[in-house]
Amino acid sequence: MIAEHNLQLDPQKNLHHFLSIEGLSRKHLTSILEATHSFTNVAEQSVKKVPLLRGKTIVNLFFEPSTRTRNTFELAAKRLSADVLNIDINTSATSKGESLLDMLHNLEAMHCDMFIIRHAYSGAAHFMAQHVAPHISVINAGDGCHEHPTQAMLDMFTIMQHKSGFALLKVAIVGDILHSRVARSQIHALNILGVEEVRVVAPKTLLPTAVETLGVHVYHHLDAALQDVDVIIMLRLQHERMQGALLPSQGEYFKNYGLTEQRLALAKSDAIVMHPGPINRGVEIASSIADGTQSVILQQVTYGIATRMAIMSMTLGRMPNHSSHPSTTE
Amino acid sequence: MIAEHNLQLDPQKNLHHFLSIEGLSRKHLTSILEATHSFTNVAEQSVKKVPLLRGKTIVNLFFEPSTRTRNTFELAAKRLSADVLNIDINTSATSKGESLLDMLHNLEAMHCDMFIIRHAYSGAAHFMAQHVAPHISVINAGDGCHEHPTQAMLDMFTIMQHKSGFALLKVAIVGDILHSRVARSQIHALNILGVEEVRVVAPKTLLPTAVETLGVHVYHHLDAALQDVDVIIMLRLQHERMQGALLPSQGEYFKNYGLTEQRLALAKSDAIVMHPGPINRGVEIASSIADGTQSVILQQVTYGIATRMAIMSMTLGRMPNHSSHPSTTE
Amino acid sequence: MIAEHNLQLDPQKNLHHFLSIEGLSRKHLTSILEATHSFTNVAEQSVKKVPLLRGKTIVNLFFEPSTRTRNTFELAAKRLSADVLNIDINTSATSKGESLLDMLHNLEAMHCDMFIIRHAYSGAAHFMAQHVAPHISVINAGDGCHEHPTQAMLDMFTIMQHKSGFALLKVAIVGDILHSRVARSQIHALNILGVEEVRVVAPKTLLPTAVETLGVHVYHHLDAALQDVDVIIMLRLQHERMQGALLPSQGEYFKNYGLTEQRLALAKSDAIVMHPGPINRGVEIASSIADGTQSVILQQVTYGIATRMAIMSMTLGRMPNHSSHPSTTE
Repeated sequence: MIAEHNLQLDPQKNLHHFLSIEGLSRKHLTSILEATHSFTNVAEQSVKKVPLLRGKTIVNLFFEPSTRTRNTFELAAKRLSADVLNIDINTSATSKGESLLDMLHNLEAMHCDMFIIRHAYSGAAHFMAQHVAPHISVINAGDGCHEHPTQAMLDMFTIMQHKSGFALLKVAIVGDILHSRVARSQIHALNILGVEEVRVVAPKTLLPTAVETLGVHVYHHLDAALQDVDVIIMLRLQHERMQGALLPSQGEYFKNYGLTEQRLALAKSDAIVMHPGPINRGVEIASSIADGTQSVILQQVTYGIATRMAIMSMTLGRMPNHSSHPSTTE
Repeated sequence: MIAEHNLQLDPQKNLHHFLSIEGLSRKHLTSILEATHSFTNVAEQSVKKVPLLRGKTIVNLFFEPSTRTRNTFELAAKRLSADVLNIDINTSATSKGESLLDMLHNLEAMHCDMFIIRHAYSGAAHFMAQHVAPHISVINAGDGCHEHPTQAMLDMFTIMQHKSGFALLKVAIVGDILHSRVARSQIHALNILGVEEVRVVAPKTLLPTAVETLGVHVYHHLDAALQDVDVIIMLRLQHERMQGALLPSQGEYFKNYGLTEQRLALAKSDAIVMHPGPINRGVEIASSIADGTQSVILQQVTYGIATRMAIMSMTLGRMPNHSSHPSTTE
Repeated sequence: MIAEHNLQLDPQKNLHHFLSIEGLSRKHLTSILEATHSFTNVAEQSVKKVPLLRGKTIVNLFFEPSTRTRNTFELAAKRLSADVLNIDINTSATSKGESLLDMLHNLEAMHCDMFIIRHAYSGAAHFMAQHVAPHISVINAGDGCHEHPTQAMLDMFTIMQHKSGFALLKVAIVGDILHSRVARSQIHALNILGVEEVRVVAPKTLLPTAVETLGVHVYHHLDAALQDVDVIIMLRLQHERMQGALLPSQGEYFKNYGLTEQRLALAKSDAIVMHPGPINRGVEIASSIADGTQSVILQQVTYGIATRMAIMSMTLGRMPNHSSHPSTTE
């Protein structure tokens, strides 16, 4: 995947696609966070709609089942006044032997403006971005075990709302790092934004080889990893993505890697607990913590709409006037 | 289900949720009928749309398959200019082990304003209403064998359009009372609106125990029950809801409980024939009657849109100015 | 199907339904082409939306799976600002034993304005048009092996954009004529518009009996048929519509009836290559031709939206002001 770093930028280095956190600068991420801030107000209004993308056609191309992510993209698009086309891949022409590229080019010919793609293969969004017409933007809504960049940005925004800056933060990411595109995107984003330390915590079987090269400290014991951290990010056990028996049992997993009240006490007293959802209560996280005062899990969902509105608007070159918004902390 | 009677009302006794007819006052029902009247005009206009719920997000959460009811809610929402999210429960995150409550709280966090729920379990809508955030309204689109209150209100509106008032009416409800949430809601509504007599007609196997306590007269023979009635409500044979062999055969059922021309002649000459649909021709009703001059079955469908527009607007506190509409008969 | 020729016209001979090309006059087809021309601009605008059908409800009733056609109708409707209801026939009330007619009448009662129907039975759209209320328009989106008239009109528009008129054109239609509703509609349209010659090319097993009576010249050898033609229309091998073994193999088919560079050279040097999609690369058409300079396959998709916007607007009697558009060539 040569040139992937630049593929998502136009010649002026502005976002045109949104494919991966890797390859973006701190300035890019900061501008997304600032734009997100300006969209958080829309959801609070009585009429939750702005006409920014009126007359644009946005296609949800989900090759993997998803409720939450697809819903948030659909809601984000509708609140930007765009028309949304949901394409059900099972009943689509691909079952008539049409190739992915032919499908793309047909949607292009229908004057669609943006593709939101989720696909089981790593690199699927990049592949699409390489082949679409120049005026179309591609947003990666999760590609295999590679990246899920809009999720990482909503996580960064959530952190920003609770902490006074990224520079001094210690962040622990706990769970199935190996299969988690969320974790991969988060690690890149945290490092680009300059946090003090990113820790990953998992059994050896759920860690990618040479994970240290991503800029993280590796822990195998949760208690040690949680010492003094500001942010705890729990990952879902991705049952559907695991092939073979990498894990003994859910009970065993919770005993070793589940977040309990006792363990949470090891972190800083104002640490926040995050999870990309959907949560498996009692498997990776105790219910009392998921519903507790340090949990920001539902805020992540809320900010997910604003984050996606921001990214959709930016990549289509349609940002609202920012002058009235003070710049965000960094 | 303690407190269910008040759960759907706000402190000013206005409708906030719409969960069951039971527990509402005649004033509530009358105000719904009046609001429905004001919305019947919208469907007749060239542009069938009003901006009352623009920028609101309405979620159709159907845990049971349905075409007609879901379509009418979707159309009602779109004609109120709301954004609609249809959630397909089979492909939703519940298949990833997410609980119903977590699903709810996630949709809440996306700033949805209303949940329309159909569920196989009685009490599902109440359960949701007990747990959603205060600004969200829940509408029961059918819960198990309990209630289907919007159906009952469209039925009441249809009766009101044909009769000069409820006070002197004799109404017969015929068929599978035991499994019918529609019948249960209709019985409550008719009694609250003060009709003279509600008769239920069914074989013993299709009647709930102690059905008389609902305020009805029980008949086992259709001919006797139809004598002198003003309104005949036929119910669907709910094949999919019947467990075990409560009935001999469809032919036998029609012989004993099917509405024929001969039997219809026993009712008042201006009696109207109603059915919640979809109808089983030749099982519970003869085709000639379903399509005949006394049938108001398709009017029920038409009024169903206006009724749902009214209920959605009222529960969200967004009613049009009524001053131009004379109050309806009662 | 007596009276089918007039069924789609109102007393003033204007289009009210759009069911088949057969039975329409050259004037009808020309007016559709002119209207399509006026809509091609909409897709090029930054805001791809006009308010022509605002407040109208358009129902997609697809009894056969389809991606492209349904998507283009949905996009066309949304770009005309209509509300769209997609009815999934598998989960619809027909599974509760509701007849097609009852379903229709229920949708009518919901004040829907237009039905777009695709159905496996020839004549399904005519049947619906015979039974809907007078204000409702029915559009045939493909009925069995009978007609697919909107596809034919977008094909005619595409030809018109590339050729200076229909009068002198030689057109070859290649492939599975027997099962192709597209071919049947194209043959009628080409003859009504007065082309010089329509050739059909297929093995005997894929030709209808007495196909000559449709006004075509029959060829069994592709090389001979392509001599000197202006337009080549390749058809899809309709695997799903073929019953029994009418064909030896895909490889064999390509050898005899696939469009290759060598064969394309037999046509006029400015011949255009068309295909209704989705294409089977290497089965009926070589990839190099599908993607080559003479291919107008993706233009067909683009013009499909404008064509459907035109037909939807015309049948509902809502055409834009044409005065500013010069009349098109003919």
